[in-house]
Amino acid sequence: LSFSFLQRAARRKRVAGRVVGLSRSAATVRRAKQRGAIDAGTTDARDAVRDADLVILAGPVDTIAPAGKRLARWMKPGSVLTDVGSTKSEIVAALETSLPRGPRGICYIGSHPIAGSEQRGIDAASAGLFAGASCLLTPTARTHPKALRAATQLWQRLGMRVSRMTPDAHDRLLGATSHLPHLIAFCLASSADPSRLGMPKSWLEMTRLAKSDPDLWDDIFLSNRAAVGKAADRLTGQIRTLRQAIVRGDRAAIVKFLRHAKAIRDAIRD
Amino acid sequence: LSFSFLQRAARRKRVAGRVVGLSRSAATVRRAKQRGAIDAGTTDARDAVRDADLVILAGPVDTIAPAGKRLARWMKPGSVLTDVGSTKSEIVAALETSLPRGPRGICYIGSHPIAGSEQRGIDAASAGLFAGASCLLTPTARTHPKALRAATQLWQRLGMRVSRMTPDAHDRLLGATSHLPHLIAFCLASSADPSRLGMPKSWLEMTRLAKSDPDLWDDIFLSNRAAVGKAADRLTGQIRTLRQAIVRGDRAAIVKFLRHAKAIRDAIRD
Repeated sequence: LSFSFLQRAARRKRVAGRVVGLSRSAATVRRAKQRGAIDAGTTDARDAVRDADLVILAGPVDTIAPAGKRLARWMKPGSVLTDVGSTKSEIVAALETSLPRGPRGICYIGSHPIAGSEQRGIDAASAGLFAGASCLLTPTARTHPKALRAATQLWQRLGMRVSRMTPDAHDRLLGATSHLPHLIAFCLASSADPSRLGMPKSWLEMTRLAKSDPDLWDDIFLSNRAAVGKAADRLTGQIRTLRQAIVRGDRAAIVKFLRHAKAIRDAIRD
Repeated sequence: LSFSFLQRAARRKRVAGRVVGLSRSAATVRRAKQRGAIDAGTTDARDAVRDADLVILAGPVDTIAPAGKRLARWMKPGSVLTDVGSTKSEIVAALETSLPRGPRGICYIGSHPIAGSEQRGIDAASAGLFAGASCLLTPTARTHPKALRAATQLWQRLGMRVSRMTPDAHDRLLGATSHLPHLIAFCLASSADPSRLGMPKSWLEMTRLAKSDPDLWDDIFLSNRAAVGKAADRLTGQIRTLRQAIVRGDRAAIVKFLRHAKAIRDAIRD
């Protein structure tokens, strides 16, 4: 599991008595320690989790469920497990069907703190990253109330606004509002014929997300393929509508389309 | 013609002995004067241009050629006319076929200073807007060397990097790098189902351009419809390619696509 911004914030905001970091890389553990992101760190998964009341899984989305299954073996009965993956349906389904349940089980809930940037790693960590941002929790009928309570408290103490929805609703929402924008930025960048001239600000802005890490985004797209596919189809339909109005010279249709889009955008706070 | 950022910059940078502003609105003239954007201002087109060595047309692209034809009647023989329209083929063709030519003619060349924002009006004016940005000039076989010289000097004195290309090459380039990003932002905004939750940063960024003025952008899209249509088709093709790879779960194809896009974007300076 890679270190996330979270550990640093958790320590600064004193949401836990003790924040322990786990990484495969001893160098990462050392750097996180030096930067004050963790109280203690280790490369030994068992050491990291055996005394923990709450374990947070971070990393590329396809690594989260396997890591959760492995760590659960050493976690205390009744302790809480959550993750920060950008897609939820696959992860929640995989962990809910495989984690030990019952009185000696692990209490799992999916989280998605919507905060971050195209940058990665402990060097980009910032304790203020979460304040005022949204965190989506994805409880199901199988979620233990203790997990819901602990996760809600965790994110609220970091200053986040916490909402709940089903894993599927989460993936549809994020497919349309985060995964699709990234997909478009990658497509716009890849269709460019970069000249030696400077590119206009509008192009730079609309392709900035294409600087994101391909090895994170392949997993996000794959683990949310149905919702991403549908969101892409909806957008392609909009492009076709506007393109046709332009090509046939239909000013009234263009103006109507642009005004509608501007009204939606103007109504949303930056 | 609306006042542009240009007048203020031209006065600050002393690119002309005297900067005269022309607007249909007396209030706009007064405000520009108060803000120091112009030396003198008027709502009388004849007064504005009859002593000018260089006249710069600014405003929505569909107003530029008609305004140029009208103003040319009162301009001095041998004086230079240029414009700052975001599309060039239509404007250049319209003015080249209608302006008086020969020894007592007007020397016209198309300009496109690539600077600005989604904001408009004299209140958004900034003298530093042009420094370091690109300006494209679109001379043709009919362009008088005097016009090319005067326009090159004008934009260079404002701190811009000046390049030349044909009006068609300009429209293809801007169609792909500016008009298409705006089109996408409008489409992404219009396909949104705004929830009460805050939208992710990625969505906000990828739709910010949809705040642009619909009454400017209908004209830009219409006056560059062929290039915009082709750019939209190319992008739709890229979306289809990436979407299909995602839906069929082809990780290798996705990673290849994302890495290619990232490489292009990483190579371009912000």
